[in-house]
Amino acid sequence: MEKLNLVSLPHFVSVENLSVEEVEALIKRAEYFKNGGATPRLTQPVYISNMFFEDSSRTHTSFEMAERKLGLTVIPFDPAHSSVNKGETLYDTSLIMDAVGVNIEVIRHSQNEYYQDLIHPKKHQHLNIGVINAGDGSGQHPSQCLLDMMTIHEHFGHFKGLKVAIVGDITNSRVAKSNMELLTRLGAEVYFSGPEYWYSSEYDKYGKYEKLDKLVPEMDVMMLLRVQHERHSGDPNEKSFDAKAYHEEYGINHKRYQELKPDTIIMHPGPINHDVELSGDLVESDKCMFTRQMQNGVFMRMAMIEVVLRGRKLGGLK
Amino acid sequence: MEKLNLVSLPHFVSVENLSVEEVEALIKRAEYFKNGGATPRLTQPVYISNMFFEDSSRTHTSFEMAERKLGLTVIPFDPAHSSVNKGETLYDTSLIMDAVGVNIEVIRHSQNEYYQDLIHPKKHQHLNIGVINAGDGSGQHPSQCLLDMMTIHEHFGHFKGLKVAIVGDITNSRVAKSNMELLTRLGAEVYFSGPEYWYSSEYDKYGKYEKLDKLVPEMDVMMLLRVQHERHSGDPNEKSFDAKAYHEEYGINHKRYQELKPDTIIMHPGPINHDVELSGDLVESDKCMFTRQMQNGVFMRMAMIEVVLRGRKLGGLK
Amino acid sequence: MEKLNLVSLPHFVSVENLSVEEVEALIKRAEYFKNGGATPRLTQPVYISNMFFEDSSRTHTSFEMAERKLGLTVIPFDPAHSSVNKGETLYDTSLIMDAVGVNIEVIRHSQNEYYQDLIHPKKHQHLNIGVINAGDGSGQHPSQCLLDMMTIHEHFGHFKGLKVAIVGDITNSRVAKSNMELLTRLGAEVYFSGPEYWYSSEYDKYGKYEKLDKLVPEMDVMMLLRVQHERHSGDPNEKSFDAKAYHEEYGINHKRYQELKPDTIIMHPGPINHDVELSGDLVESDKCMFTRQMQNGVFMRMAMIEVVLRGRKLGGLK
Repeated sequence: MEKLNLVSLPHFVSVENLSVEEVEALIKRAEYFKNGGATPRLTQPVYISNMFFEDSSRTHTSFEMAERKLGLTVIPFDPAHSSVNKGETLYDTSLIMDAVGVNIEVIRHSQNEYYQDLIHPKKHQHLNIGVINAGDGSGQHPSQCLLDMMTIHEHFGHFKGLKVAIVGDITNSRVAKSNMELLTRLGAEVYFSGPEYWYSSEYDKYGKYEKLDKLVPEMDVMMLLRVQHERHSGDPNEKSFDAKAYHEEYGINHKRYQELKPDTIIMHPGPINHDVELSGDLVESDKCMFTRQMQNGVFMRMAMIEVVLRGRKLGGLK
Repeated sequence: MEKLNLVSLPHFVSVENLSVEEVEALIKRAEYFKNGGATPRLTQPVYISNMFFEDSSRTHTSFEMAERKLGLTVIPFDPAHSSVNKGETLYDTSLIMDAVGVNIEVIRHSQNEYYQDLIHPKKHQHLNIGVINAGDGSGQHPSQCLLDMMTIHEHFGHFKGLKVAIVGDITNSRVAKSNMELLTRLGAEVYFSGPEYWYSSEYDKYGKYEKLDKLVPEMDVMMLLRVQHERHSGDPNEKSFDAKAYHEEYGINHKRYQELKPDTIIMHPGPINHDVELSGDLVESDKCMFTRQMQNGVFMRMAMIEVVLRGRKLGGLK
Repeated sequence: MEKLNLVSLPHFVSVENLSVEEVEALIKRAEYFKNGGATPRLTQPVYISNMFFEDSSRTHTSFEMAERKLGLTVIPFDPAHSSVNKGETLYDTSLIMDAVGVNIEVIRHSQNEYYQDLIHPKKHQHLNIGVINAGDGSGQHPSQCLLDMMTIHEHFGHFKGLKVAIVGDITNSRVAKSNMELLTRLGAEVYFSGPEYWYSSEYDKYGKYEKLDKLVPEMDVMMLLRVQHERHSGDPNEKSFDAKAYHEEYGINHKRYQELKPDTIIMHPGPINHDVELSGDLVESDKCMFTRQMQNGVFMRMAMIEVVLRGRKLGGLK
């Protein structure tokens, strides 16, 4: 029997309140699943539903996979055909999911902290359903953050003193903010690069902004962010967006790739804009962890769901 | 072994032909499932598909849940991506579902009595697939009707002499017509209220129309109907629809809530227009059965599906 | 134990490279499944995903059914909500499916030979996922082709010397080209009919074009093709398309039906345009194999998926 040292929570909406020990326990548990470790035996059926109000093939598919590997029963939910079209609130929709017997909702939604209503129902409200946040607006994306940590830990075995550059569209990235905060707490040194108009002084407390070419030969991790074209409509900087110029100035091309230290890794949350953040033919290069991140994501999501299973004593777990 | 006293049918499209004894047997069976009673053991796989040509998160999710609790195999069907877009008829689509081995179709469709072609194929036609009606146009919605009956029965233990008010958008409600007919047969007294332009003399045989404030202190059940904004386009009454005025005149607000008898319950099929039919903060009040109805819906749908399983001798059942 | 004589392949994208023996082995295996033969016992879970970038209820539903009958775990994928909307390539999407642990992708896509990139990754690419082609542009549709062969074989017991007419919209038909090629190799005699502007001299090597009324009394198989209205936008012949005239000149009406030989069968891949290719009330006539084709499709797809399971040693198969 493996020794469990797991946090158990009724909801998993953020990484902010996780201690360093809890993050490490989650990574350890995800690695255990990745190495073929047995999943907990559920003595009662557990019903889970994936409610993706924003598009995301990778996160959605990864959760679907994690849920089935844990032996959960997945109840399909299609926001496009739901009564949200008739003006129903997310609270009322959750009330229904709870009432029909769904135990956990995995939600992605464009509204920041959409989950506050769901996990802290007001007085006289009785909603009682687990919420796992799969991304809220420009807020958190805890599963992406934790799979990134797992991928770094898998490669280096530790975080202490690692130099990590976060490069690109920081303003619009859900994962950048969680990552800079958590990496700092885990003992890594954070740096920033990319277009200066996407940098903000609020990040100063986590690390400093540098030109990309200064960072390239020094970093252990190059964490590239996706240019989120779909979030920039109306942004004056976007009108003049020039993919070639971006790649030249802020992207990892072959020349910069050669200058990276031998053990350095490149990370990207996907979907990758080829020849913008990263030269297309480097997606499957040795240093690029893109597919490794996806692989690890399934196992980290299994660990996260298990935390909620235990937190709610579902499936007969304690 | 529980004693079964169940109706068995090849299709379940309406409540009109159910006897009072059959309705009571269905309620009893649903209560049995709700109390944790074992589901029938299927010795062969049964394939079922949910074909929702109109939006409905609650009914759809409830059927998905009921099917899995019964151990059926659910074959996904997305009308938006189906060949109905290439002009295929519902009959031909059903012919295909039958041919590939789907045993039962659960259908919601905007056309009244869409199912006639499917359950009474013409001469020389060989369609042979179970149909469960999840709502046809402004026609029937048998599972909603029966879960309402179950909810009333659960609270009062009987129907005889109960005073039930049906309030609101009766013309456009699938469930109102089934409910008024069935409640009358079960021995309840039916009353109507709401905007007079949504009332029609054809309902006179079931009960009489009264002002809401006269009914409030006398009723045992206040059955509120959803104002179906999406069905009123072009309705001259709709143009001037004033949510605040509706709530004031026809909605259950706090003042009216206080005047209800201690044991009275409020029902609503959902989705609720907050502060129209019902004051938003009364959705989870003690008298409001909204979430109870959803809960019961899963177990009633299990009972209904079982009726068709037995009617078609599916899964090895008799 | 049945004796297996099956081809095993890492991908199933075309019928072109199948030998006559392999086609016959696939038909035999599909007939074995149809007769209730046991499916191979999977000792490990196998994950499969259906990625239909073009609408098709029949093919999609048939694969969903085949997969469940084989005991595979189906991971849902909705192209409409996928990151393909953010400009992701099919290669990158497949890389993700592979990374999260999906073993086989069943793909329908509008691009001819979309699968070349996926089954022959370039140097330094590591994609490793099984691809089953469920239709590529105006290219192949191997499962439809093979279920057609199975249906002919089931009826006649052989192919040698059978006279098969392919009638109608040949240019836009994925299945016509595979069928003419494979039927010829299997020993059947192919003929063509329908509007001459949809005929091309490139088909001359498989058979000759004749007027429909000459073919009707001589053929063993009338293979009708669907008029693909949705692919003809901009086609000058389409503007003047007259369903009644088409039916009169190129369709099977009651008069032509009577002239068919007693043992002749009519085939149609669906969806049928009633009273265009075929008189609507002949869809379920004795000679019409429309529903039989659908039935057989599930079993043929089981056989095809099994070929890839064995080719990739999935589920513990060899």
